[in-house]
Amino acid sequence: MKVTGFELRRIAMPLVSPFRTSFGVEHDRDVLLVRAVTEDGAEGWGECVAMAEPLYSSEYVDGAAEVIRRFLIPAVLSLPDADPYLAEVPFAKIKGHPMAKAAVQTALLDAKLRIVGTPLAAHLGAVRDRVPAGVSVGIMDSIPELLEAVAGYLAEGYLRIKLKIQPGWDVAPVRAVRERFGDIALQVDANTAYTLADARHLAKLDPFELLLMEQPLPEDDIRGHAELAKQVRTPICLDESITSARAAADAIALGATSVVNIKPGRVGGYLEARRVHDVCAANGVPVWVGGMLETGIGRAANVALAALPGCVLPGDTSASDRYFRRDITAPFVLADGHLAVPTGPGVGVDPDPAALAEVTTATEWIAR
Amino acid sequence: MKVTGFELRRIAMPLVSPFRTSFGVEHDRDVLLVRAVTEDGAEGWGECVAMAEPLYSSEYVDGAAEVIRRFLIPAVLSLPDADPYLAEVPFAKIKGHPMAKAAVQTALLDAKLRIVGTPLAAHLGAVRDRVPAGVSVGIMDSIPELLEAVAGYLAEGYLRIKLKIQPGWDVAPVRAVRERFGDIALQVDANTAYTLADARHLAKLDPFELLLMEQPLPEDDIRGHAELAKQVRTPICLDESITSARAAADAIALGATSVVNIKPGRVGGYLEARRVHDVCAANGVPVWVGGMLETGIGRAANVALAALPGCVLPGDTSASDRYFRRDITAPFVLADGHLAVPTGPGVGVDPDPAALAEVTTATEWIAR
Amino acid sequence: MKVTGFELRRIAMPLVSPFRTSFGVEHDRDVLLVRAVTEDGAEGWGECVAMAEPLYSSEYVDGAAEVIRRFLIPAVLSLPDADPYLAEVPFAKIKGHPMAKAAVQTALLDAKLRIVGTPLAAHLGAVRDRVPAGVSVGIMDSIPELLEAVAGYLAEGYLRIKLKIQPGWDVAPVRAVRERFGDIALQVDANTAYTLADARHLAKLDPFELLLMEQPLPEDDIRGHAELAKQVRTPICLDESITSARAAADAIALGATSVVNIKPGRVGGYLEARRVHDVCAANGVPVWVGGMLETGIGRAANVALAALPGCVLPGDTSASDRYFRRDITAPFVLADGHLAVPTGPGVGVDPDPAALAEVTTATEWIAR
Amino acid sequence: MKVTGFELRRIAMPLVSPFRTSFGVEHDRDVLLVRAVTEDGAEGWGECVAMAEPLYSSEYVDGAAEVIRRFLIPAVLSLPDADPYLAEVPFAKIKGHPMAKAAVQTALLDAKLRIVGTPLAAHLGAVRDRVPAGVSVGIMDSIPELLEAVAGYLAEGYLRIKLKIQPGWDVAPVRAVRERFGDIALQVDANTAYTLADARHLAKLDPFELLLMEQPLPEDDIRGHAELAKQVRTPICLDESITSARAAADAIALGATSVVNIKPGRVGGYLEARRVHDVCAANGVPVWVGGMLETGIGRAANVALAALPGCVLPGDTSASDRYFRRDITAPFVLADGHLAVPTGPGVGVDPDPAALAEVTTATEWIAR
Repeated sequence: MKVTGFELRRIAMPLVSPFRTSFGVEHDRDVLLVRAVTEDGAEGWGECVAMAEPLYSSEYVDGAAEVIRRFLIPAVLSLPDADPYLAEVPFAKIKGHPMAKAAVQTALLDAKLRIVGTPLAAHLGAVRDRVPAGVSVGIMDSIPELLEAVAGYLAEGYLRIKLKIQPGWDVAPVRAVRERFGDIALQVDANTAYTLADARHLAKLDPFELLLMEQPLPEDDIRGHAELAKQVRTPICLDESITSARAAADAIALGATSVVNIKPGRVGGYLEARRVHDVCAANGVPVWVGGMLETGIGRAANVALAALPGCVLPGDTSASDRYFRRDITAPFVLADGHLAVPTGPGVGVDPDPAALAEVTTATEWIAR
Repeated sequence: MKVTGFELRRIAMPLVSPFRTSFGVEHDRDVLLVRAVTEDGAEGWGECVAMAEPLYSSEYVDGAAEVIRRFLIPAVLSLPDADPYLAEVPFAKIKGHPMAKAAVQTALLDAKLRIVGTPLAAHLGAVRDRVPAGVSVGIMDSIPELLEAVAGYLAEGYLRIKLKIQPGWDVAPVRAVRERFGDIALQVDANTAYTLADARHLAKLDPFELLLMEQPLPEDDIRGHAELAKQVRTPICLDESITSARAAADAIALGATSVVNIKPGRVGGYLEARRVHDVCAANGVPVWVGGMLETGIGRAANVALAALPGCVLPGDTSASDRYFRRDITAPFVLADGHLAVPTGPGVGVDPDPAALAEVTTATEWIAR
Repeated sequence: MKVTGFELRRIAMPLVSPFRTSFGVEHDRDVLLVRAVTEDGAEGWGECVAMAEPLYSSEYVDGAAEVIRRFLIPAVLSLPDADPYLAEVPFAKIKGHPMAKAAVQTALLDAKLRIVGTPLAAHLGAVRDRVPAGVSVGIMDSIPELLEAVAGYLAEGYLRIKLKIQPGWDVAPVRAVRERFGDIALQVDANTAYTLADARHLAKLDPFELLLMEQPLPEDDIRGHAELAKQVRTPICLDESITSARAAADAIALGATSVVNIKPGRVGGYLEARRVHDVCAANGVPVWVGGMLETGIGRAANVALAALPGCVLPGDTSASDRYFRRDITAPFVLADGHLAVPTGPGVGVDPDPAALAEVTTATEWIAR
Repeated sequence: MKVTGFELRRIAMPLVSPFRTSFGVEHDRDVLLVRAVTEDGAEGWGECVAMAEPLYSSEYVDGAAEVIRRFLIPAVLSLPDADPYLAEVPFAKIKGHPMAKAAVQTALLDAKLRIVGTPLAAHLGAVRDRVPAGVSVGIMDSIPELLEAVAGYLAEGYLRIKLKIQPGWDVAPVRAVRERFGDIALQVDANTAYTLADARHLAKLDPFELLLMEQPLPEDDIRGHAELAKQVRTPICLDESITSARAAADAIALGATSVVNIKPGRVGGYLEARRVHDVCAANGVPVWVGGMLETGIGRAANVALAALPGCVLPGDTSASDRYFRRDITAPFVLADGHLAVPTGPGVGVDPDPAALAEVTTATEWIAR
C-alpha cells in the first residue's frame, strides 16, 4: 500500500454537558482527525484522542498534530509499503507520542482494511456482535444532581456506572449512589488524584462492593498501586499507567493491577491495544475499553476492540448522544444497554460530509 | 520573586565533530535557552537539553519551546511568587515534558540565587570545588579510528572513558580499548539498543571489568533490566529510565540498577536531580552526572550538581572544547582531569554577548 | 563563611504541665541553644533537642554540650568555609550524636541564610505558608482527665490528636477518645514500649481506624516492625528508628514502616531531614514532623520543614503555649488549626533578649 | 549482692607502636577501669574499651565516664541486688552507651564470680583451656615495612594475620602478604572505610582467598553489606554493625554477614556477647572475639569468651606485648600460637598495684 498523502482536519465538537474530572472542566471537544489517502484512491480515518492541554498525559492536540506533521507522516511516506504493522518499526524509534501514532496508524489500518473489505472487528479477532455499554459520570456540584444524572443513564439502559472521584468527592457520592440504586454495576475513577497516604481513606470504599477503583495514584507509581492493592479490597484497575503491552505485563507481575482499562490512543493504536488485551488474557486479568470523548470515528474502532473475548467488563463505550448532540457519523445508539459492533470494512463508519463541514475549523494536506 | 517575562533564545552551536549514537548522527547542536527577568532587574538562565528530534525521549527542541511558551510560562506568570520550588506544583499538573520544565525552573533558580548571591553548587549542597571529568566517545567507523580518539582524550587528561555501543559495535571495540590502554576507568552506553534476548551477548563484556553498562534495554523495561542484572556481571546503570526520584526508588527496589546516571533535564530540573541523588545515596547507589551536549550555561549547572557527595563516579561533564570550538560562556577547561565548580552566584557563568549574538538564530520575549 | 565562635547557652523553660510518656515525667525543659557568630557579625541559632537524660536516645543535654564543645566546634572552626553542607563531611567522621550535630549545623545554616536573606523554608523547598497542627497528649492518670485534655485541644483548634500509649494505657483510652469525639484524626505513639509478643494486643487498636501507630517496638527492631505490620491493620510509623535517610530507605525496603515521623535532631539536622523527606516521597511514604518540646527557635525550623510537599499529615508542631507560658521568641499561635511558616531570613524568628535572660542558666563562649 | 561503691580509675598505657586505622593514629591508650566494691569486701574489675574520640562509635572515654558516673552507677546503687543480670533491666532504659554499660556490668560480674569462686570462662560456658591467637596489623607507610611486621608476628607464632585496609591500601598489601607468606590464615578489616560503589574494587580481593573481609561499609548499612555479599566472594564479617544479639539476628537474616566479630564492649557486656555467640551458633555463623587494645583485665575476659564453642576462628586476642611493654596484670603470652584461658575466679587476673600506680592518672570513688 502506498500513501499519497494525509489530511489533518481539526474539528470542534460541542459537548452536551461539560465534563468535570479531577483535572478540570471540558466544555467542548477539540479533535484532530487524520485521513490517509492511498495511490489507488482508498482512504482511511484515524482520530487523535489527545486533549487540548497536557493534563491527562504529556500529549495535547496541537503538539500531537505537530509530531504527526513533522515526524510520523514523513516516516510513513518513506516506507516502501505503508502497512500499519510495518509503520510500527520507524514509529518505535520516535519516543513517546502514542496518541499521535495511534491516529496515523488507525488511518493506515482503516485504509488497508477498506481495500480488502475486512471489518476492523474481524481483523482484531472480535467474537461478539454487540458490546455492553457503561457510562462515565463526571464530578457534580451536588449529590442530588449526581443522583439525577445516574438515574437518567440507568433509564437509558446503561449497564454499568462509573463515577469520577477526587479528594472531597468520593465516599459520600458512592454511598449515595449505592444506597439509591442498589446492586447496580458500579465503579470509580480517580484519574491519579490520590497518593498512597490516602490508602486508609480509599479503603472506606470497600463496603460498597465496587467493580474496581481506576487509577487512584500517579501514572508512574506502579509500586504504590501494588502497595495500595494490599490495603484496599476494591480491585485496582490501571488506566494512565498502562502505556504498552510491556507496561501491562509489568504491572500485573508486580501486583499493581487486577483489571486493565485499555485506551488505544494511550498505547499507540489498535494493534498494541490488542497486544495489551492478549497479555491481560494470558494472565487472567479482565479488560475493558475506555473512552476519550471520541467522535463516531474513534467510537467505532473502540466498539470493535471491545468485541474481543477478553473484554469481559462493560466499557466506557457509551452512545454518541452521551457526549454530542450531532456526531460526524451515524450515531451509536443504545439497544438493550448495548452498542452494535460495526460490520462494514475498516472502522465501519463514514463521516457525514455535511456534519463534518459544520464542525471543521481547519484542514491541511500533506502530500508525499 | 516576580518575573516580568521570559526570553526564549534559539542558538545553533557547531559541533567540533559529529556525534554518532545508536540513534543517528548529530552535526550541530540546536539549543533553546530560557532567560527569566525579574521585576527588580535580575535575570536567570536555563538551557533546554532537548535534541532536534524525539529520539532520546519524547521531547524535541521545537516541541519543548511550544510547551514552555504555551503552558509553563503562563503557569509561572500566574504564581504570586515565582519561586522555583513553588513552580513545581503547577508544573506537576502538566504531565511529561521534563526538559522543558527543567529549562524554565533553572532560569528561575538561577535568578533567585543571583539575587541572594548564592552559587547553585552551594544551594544544592556541593562538597567539592572541582569534579573529575569523563568523556563519552561516539560510535566510530573503525577500531583504529576509535583507538586514536580514545588516546587523544586520555592525553587531554580525561579520567574515565565511555564508549557508545550498539549491536555490531560492542565487544570488539571494548576489547580493543582495554587491550591498548590497560586498566583505565572504562564503561559503555547502549542507549536502549539491546533487548533481553541479548543478555548472553552482553555477558561477553564481563571479562573487561567495565565500571558499568548504561541503559542496555528500552527505558520502560525496568523488569528486563532487573533480569539482565542477574545474567551479566557488569553493573547496570540506568539513564533514560530514571525520570524522577520515584523512578529511581522503584528501579533500585526492583534490582534493575546499581548505578544511576542523573541528567537534570530528564528528571525535570536540578531540584528533582538532587532528590534522585539523595534517594540513590540513601540506598548506597553511586551516581554520576550525564551530559546532553550542553553549552557553558547547562554545563555549569551540571558541574555544580556533580559536586554533591553522592556523585562518586566521574561524569560526562567534559570540557567545553569536547563539543564546541567556541562556547557562549568562558569555556570549561580540563585541569588535571577535573573541571572547576563555578563559584559565582546562580549557575555562576554568564553568556558572552558577542558569542551569543554570533550563534543566535531567533529570540522571543514573553511578558507577563 | 568564617565563624569566629559559638555561644553555648543553657536555659530552663518551665513547662505548662508535666509531660508523661512511657519513659517518665518531664517537669521542665532544660535546653541547650547554640549561637554561631560569623566574621562579618552575622549570627545563627540552633537548638539542641536532647533531653536531660538518655531515655529517648543515647544523647542527653550535658553530653551533647560536651560533644559540641569538644569535637564539633573544633571541626567547624578548622574548616576553611563553615558552610553547613561542608560541615557534614567532618561531622560524618564523628560517629553518632545527631542532636548535637543538628544544633551546630542549624546555627550555621541559620547564619548563612540570614546573610543572604533567605528563609529556611524557602531554602528547604517549602510549598506552603502555613502548616496544620497536631498535638501530642501525654499519659494521664485517668480517662476522664484524658478526655478533658483532648476536648481542650480540639477546642483550641488542633487538627489531629496523638495519644501516648504504653502497656496498660492503650485500648481503653483510644476507645474512650474515639467514642467521645467521633471521627477526629487520631493516632498513637508507643515510644518503643511494646514487643513483638504484643502484636495481638496491638491489633485490638485496629477497629479504631487510627491514622498510625508510632514506634511500638524498640528502635533497633526493624524486622520486628516489618513483622508487626503484617499482624495489625493500623499503619506503622517509625520515629526513633529513623536515624538517617539510609535508615528510612532501609525501613521502607523491609516493609517496616508506611509513615515516617521526621525529627531533625534525631537525623542530624535539617539537611538530612530533607533527605529523609525526599526518600519517603520517592517511595510514596507520607511524612510528618515530630516535636521534642522545642522553644520558638527549634519550633520555627520545624514548621519550615513541615511546609515541604511530602509532609502530608499534621505534625506535632503545636503552638508554643502547648508547652510554655512564655516562649523565648514571639510565640507560635494556632490560627484555624494551623501555624504560620516564618517568612524572615534563616529560621525566621529571633530570641527576645529579656525573655532569654530570664531563663538563661549558663552561657559559654568558644572562640576560634 | 550489695555494692558499696565504685572506683573509676583512669590509666595511660604507652603503646609499643602507634596503631593506624582508616580513622587515624593512636599513640597511647587512655583507659577507664571500673572497680566495684561489695558490702562484704569483694571487688570486681571492668575495663571500658571506649577510645579517646568518638571515631569507632559514638562513645569516647570521657563521655563514657560521665554516663557511668551519672546514670549507670546510680541505677546499680538503687538496685536491691546488684546482680549483673538484674542490672540489665535499668540499663536497657538508658539508651546506647554499651561500652560504658559493659565496663560496669563486667565489674559486677567479676565481683559476683569471685565471691562464689567461679571463673568467667566457666560461667559463660567455655569448652577450651586455650584459644588460638590472631593479630591485627595496622596500616603501614610501605609494603616492605608491612612485610617485616607480618614476618615478625608469624615468627612469634600468631596463627592468623589481619590487615587493616583503606582505599589506597588494600589490594597491593594483600597481594604482597599472600605472595610472600603463602597459604597463611589471612583476613582484612576496613573499619567502614568503603561504600557500596567500591564493590568491584573489593572484589579484586577475591583471588587472595581471604578468610573474611571485616566491616567494609558504614555500620548502619546492613542492606549495603547484603548487596556487597552478592558481589564479592570473600565472606563478609560485621563488627561495628553488630550492636546486640538482635542486630546479629537481623544481619544474618538479611544476608549481610556470614561471620561475626564479637566485641563485648560494643554489645554492652559479656552477657550480651554470649547471646550474640548463641544466636550466631544457632544460625551456623562462625564468630571470633575482637579486640580494642585492652589491658590484661579486658584481655582476660575476652580470652574467656573466646573459649566458647562457637568461636571457631582465631580472634584478635593477641599477647599483651603486642600492645604494651608492661601490662597492669601478669601478661598474656603466646604459647604455640595460643593464649591460656584464665582459671582463677572472675576474670581470673588481678592488677599489679605497682604497675597500676605507675600508669594511673586519676581515681574517683563513688559511694552509695
